[in-house]
Amino acid sequence: MNLMKTLIPAAAIVALPQMGLAQEAVTGEAAQHTQYIFTTLLFLMGGFLVFFMAAGFAMLEGGLVRSKNVAMQMIKNMALFSIAAIMYWLIGFNLMYPGDGWSITGWLGPFFSTTKLDAVGVAPADAALDYASIGSDFFFQLVFVAATASIVSGAVAERIKLWPFLAFVVVLTGIMYPISGSWQWGGGWLSEAGFSDFAGSTVVHSVGGWAALAGAIILGPRIGKYKDGRVHPIPGSNLALATLGTFILWLGWFGFNGGSQLAMGTVGDVSDVSRIFANTNMAAASGSVAALIMTQLLYKKPDLTMVLNGALAGLVSITAEPLAPTLFGALWIGAVGGIIVVFAVPMLDKFKIDDVVGAIPVHLFAGIWGTIAVIFYGEASLGTQLLGIIAYGVFTFAGALVLWTVLKSTVGIRVSEEDEINGLDMAELGMEAYPEFSKG
Amino acid sequence: MNLMKTLIPAAAIVALPQMGLAQEAVTGEAAQHTQYIFTTLLFLMGGFLVFFMAAGFAMLEGGLVRSKNVAMQMIKNMALFSIAAIMYWLIGFNLMYPGDGWSITGWLGPFFSTTKLDAVGVAPADAALDYASIGSDFFFQLVFVAATASIVSGAVAERIKLWPFLAFVVVLTGIMYPISGSWQWGGGWLSEAGFSDFAGSTVVHSVGGWAALAGAIILGPRIGKYKDGRVHPIPGSNLALATLGTFILWLGWFGFNGGSQLAMGTVGDVSDVSRIFANTNMAAASGSVAALIMTQLLYKKPDLTMVLNGALAGLVSITAEPLAPTLFGALWIGAVGGIIVVFAVPMLDKFKIDDVVGAIPVHLFAGIWGTIAVIFYGEASLGTQLLGIIAYGVFTFAGALVLWTVLKSTVGIRVSEEDEINGLDMAELGMEAYPEFSKG
Amino acid sequence: MNLMKTLIPAAAIVALPQMGLAQEAVTGEAAQHTQYIFTTLLFLMGGFLVFFMAAGFAMLEGGLVRSKNVAMQMIKNMALFSIAAIMYWLIGFNLMYPGDGWSITGWLGPFFSTTKLDAVGVAPADAALDYASIGSDFFFQLVFVAATASIVSGAVAERIKLWPFLAFVVVLTGIMYPISGSWQWGGGWLSEAGFSDFAGSTVVHSVGGWAALAGAIILGPRIGKYKDGRVHPIPGSNLALATLGTFILWLGWFGFNGGSQLAMGTVGDVSDVSRIFANTNMAAASGSVAALIMTQLLYKKPDLTMVLNGALAGLVSITAEPLAPTLFGALWIGAVGGIIVVFAVPMLDKFKIDDVVGAIPVHLFAGIWGTIAVIFYGEASLGTQLLGIIAYGVFTFAGALVLWTVLKSTVGIRVSEEDEINGLDMAELGMEAYPEFSKG
Repeated sequence: MNLMKTLIPAAAIVALPQMGLAQEAVTGEAAQHTQYIFTTLLFLMGGFLVFFMAAGFAMLEGGLVRSKNVAMQMIKNMALFSIAAIMYWLIGFNLMYPGDGWSITGWLGPFFSTTKLDAVGVAPADAALDYASIGSDFFFQLVFVAATASIVSGAVAERIKLWPFLAFVVVLTGIMYPISGSWQWGGGWLSEAGFSDFAGSTVVHSVGGWAALAGAIILGPRIGKYKDGRVHPIPGSNLALATLGTFILWLGWFGFNGGSQLAMGTVGDVSDVSRIFANTNMAAASGSVAALIMTQLLYKKPDLTMVLNGALAGLVSITAEPLAPTLFGALWIGAVGGIIVVFAVPMLDKFKIDDVVGAIPVHLFAGIWGTIAVIFYGEASLGTQLLGIIAYGVFTFAGALVLWTVLKSTVGIRVSEEDEINGLDMAELGMEAYPEFSKG
Repeated sequence: MNLMKTLIPAAAIVALPQMGLAQEAVTGEAAQHTQYIFTTLLFLMGGFLVFFMAAGFAMLEGGLVRSKNVAMQMIKNMALFSIAAIMYWLIGFNLMYPGDGWSITGWLGPFFSTTKLDAVGVAPADAALDYASIGSDFFFQLVFVAATASIVSGAVAERIKLWPFLAFVVVLTGIMYPISGSWQWGGGWLSEAGFSDFAGSTVVHSVGGWAALAGAIILGPRIGKYKDGRVHPIPGSNLALATLGTFILWLGWFGFNGGSQLAMGTVGDVSDVSRIFANTNMAAASGSVAALIMTQLLYKKPDLTMVLNGALAGLVSITAEPLAPTLFGALWIGAVGGIIVVFAVPMLDKFKIDDVVGAIPVHLFAGIWGTIAVIFYGEASLGTQLLGIIAYGVFTFAGALVLWTVLKSTVGIRVSEEDEINGLDMAELGMEAYPEFSKG
Repeated sequence: MNLMKTLIPAAAIVALPQMGLAQEAVTGEAAQHTQYIFTTLLFLMGGFLVFFMAAGFAMLEGGLVRSKNVAMQMIKNMALFSIAAIMYWLIGFNLMYPGDGWSITGWLGPFFSTTKLDAVGVAPADAALDYASIGSDFFFQLVFVAATASIVSGAVAERIKLWPFLAFVVVLTGIMYPISGSWQWGGGWLSEAGFSDFAGSTVVHSVGGWAALAGAIILGPRIGKYKDGRVHPIPGSNLALATLGTFILWLGWFGFNGGSQLAMGTVGDVSDVSRIFANTNMAAASGSVAALIMTQLLYKKPDLTMVLNGALAGLVSITAEPLAPTLFGALWIGAVGGIIVVFAVPMLDKFKIDDVVGAIPVHLFAGIWGTIAVIFYGEASLGTQLLGIIAYGVFTFAGALVLWTVLKSTVGIRVSEEDEINGLDMAELGMEAYPEFSKG
């Protein structure tokens, strides 16, 4: 919008009244078109980067489960993204961002309408010139909801049945996420209350984390994880894959946070997107280094999976406010995220909550931290931030608990003991991810 | 800075009524430059996304072959992309898009000329201001032809010799694809006949599929695949890698279809690119879900490789017309693609055509389906679409049959039985992809 | 085209002289803003592509080391990128590109200042309108320095201790690279002397190569590599991963070279970026094909790792001047790079310099070649190019020798013989990358 504002004084010095207005309109129109194209491009670029996070989650999870469950983790990640795409079109997008003629009350409503794109070759007069094309906006929002489902997938791995998991994804992506998302991003009551969550530490990550936590509790731990009062670590089968997944997620996060600026058509906006890129990168770096140092200090040996999760926790931490902090702000906010993970992973084990990939520390705990950290740089009070954290927590955790319980008591959510020991790949899919490599 | 410089003299002449016209020219010029930059950027962005599909094909194929043939599949994919890049520069680009001073008759011609880029720092007057820079256009077209070659690579895996395969790639990418491509995208007879193929369900994917089919037939099946009247499935060695490959291909497809809008400089064009992104994503999602459900219904167990190929078939299906359909249109077109794959894979086995990765069902059958599906949303008649499908099929299949047969009867295309059993990696390359992992 | 059409009626009504000047200011300002956005976008896009090269290096190296050292290679690559990000913010960026109020003498100085981004929502008057936002520039420069550190990581793999390696990275990325980088890109004495290195064949790649060479010499070869006067090849554990890494690096190189145009806001600039994309791709392709043919001729069997390194050598070779050459120029420059690698790898073995992944041939030797090749197309004399090559070589090699020696004689840089034989993963990290796959 900067361009249009700066044009008005310049146009005001022209002599003929009529002409001034005409000229202003002309240049303003050209500038407006250019801005629309830039912002649409931001969503497309951000969108494909966040899309690729689906591969990142798949690789991270595939690397952190045992080889007997890898094919299952792959099919879950393909399917959850696909289901999210369909459900968000069918219900979610319009439920979260209600259009004209209907307004969500801020809590929940009977709204149900599939997404309708701009017409082919839409005329400027029919486009949202002060924003972006519907298709790009829909695509960008859609890849966010899929990320939420991916978070759950990792925590409940290695013991959950495929179809009940997918049923959970249907409700999470079609109804739960869009309803709570609308509170903040759909202009609902939390945004009016002053809650601040730039790209979704709470709206996306902690929501995924709460749903994962409920699932991990209802499911119970994997066989052998907690035995004789001790924790038995179950190492992941492929740490190269897990590292690749983390790098892909880091890459995708530039789109996740950068795209959430929601505008790129002015000097100020594109510079803000740049700030966000730099801060996002810094928080990931410091989260990673913090976890590296902490595991060296605590365990005398650096821990690769903690370093990976430290980077991710840094990213989640900066997601609530990636714009306002200085680079030093991003550094310490991310570092605290990395430290949280190092302490939270064993803490969950104390409670015998078996989170296979560390999704709950990364996405829930660092998500809460990041949401609180907004008060140091952004414009939000601690009270409002806590209100938002609690509102999302209560709604999502309670909803997920109910949903998991219903699924458990009807179709069942956990595979048989025999199937779990043999691996979900053979039991549920009849195939192996690595059929030729003999197991040690 | 060019823009500002050119504006000053233009502004200097204003003073009088003529000024109206001058001003029109000035602002029009600035807008035209901006459009040129946007469209060039679309090609660069689309181009690097489609380039990355080379990695996607490599990972998909590397995951679906046995570990003893993985290094060979890797070298083939590196080499085929590189050869395509050289051949398309040497002959293909100008053969497919003949420039001034020469015109292809629509079928074939003696045209031979290497690609010549815009001059360094090209002046606006010398650039194709209503389109994009030559370098970006060439790069974007080049990564398409490489995709065609990648398709062949998967189908003929695990038994073909390296050099004859590469010889086939030389002809396919330098001559066959450019000739048939010019019929449609070079403004040839099929485009004049009204054939419609937006991003290449037929021009790219079915061409790859036909060449693959001819190769699979001439080569014959792998040892042990069809024995005693039964089909013996040969599982892939690394389904995590195959899943990664599929996600990368899905990512690349945003560039493949989105870039094929060939313009991004207006509100209408960038909105169309957005529609294409959303539709492309939807078709992949529905193809994946359709294959998931179909394999559950038919075999009582979901099949990961079918889900991967279902997503790819959805993508191929929407490629002929990713713009015109609604999201619901994309959903059902993609879903049909996914279902086709589930039925086509066993059908090929009935004919003892051994397609290692499912490239023929995905790229040929879903490509034909997608080309037909244009009639439901785009502007094309069934007759013309069938004409195009048949023309590409006859030309490519016959050409490939001849080429494979010539190669077979001269240098031979198949490794010895002993080499096939020992694996191509040791036999042809003297190395193993996973030398440390003992085979089960 | 929409823009032009809508402008005509509006322009037709203008008639007053004053308007001309007003309009000039207005349109010029709008055009300048648009240029700033385009160039900033180039840095963001180029930046995330180059960022992803960190994953490429990790996968390449992870695939080329033995499985007992993979987790270590992963943690090193995560940590080195993170450390580079922090050090470059803390010291490097301002040391390399000194701002107002302080000027580096061209060699070295006491400059020390953390990076400060543009203000949130920076006003156009406060932004570098003729360039790009600070955040995007910083991010783009930062991912380059990380690449330098990644190069070292590969060469010294499988025997170096984690923490001394990271200490080296601290100095390399915070001090050594920025100082020598400022000679050329910070407007220092080498750029004034006419040295030409567009995207860093010397400034980035050979610097990494020199540091790697010093490290490999001081460390000594891996146990068992050179025994009884013979070279014992140590095959990499996962060539699929190494291939993936190479494709990712190739992808990232479009950002590396394309972004180094440092401008995208004019017809000439975006066309130049396109030339760079096309040339970069061509050099990689010809490097790959050259290595394929050479290994077939020399060893009767194509060598996959040579093909991968050939592609990378082609990329390094074209990096010093990716803009000026024709596509044929890029082809032969890249091909020479590929050939260099095929001869340089065994040559290093003659000197018993054990470079695990071939980083020195690829980044140092092909880097030198590429810097010399500038004289055939760019504007540089052989003398100046050699001056630059030698200056970077002496400074970096000497500095690295000193630093490695200090580290060796204080904390020690090499793991114990026992730890090396057991693998760094168990010894230093207490974990395995592939714990379930038994070793053959």
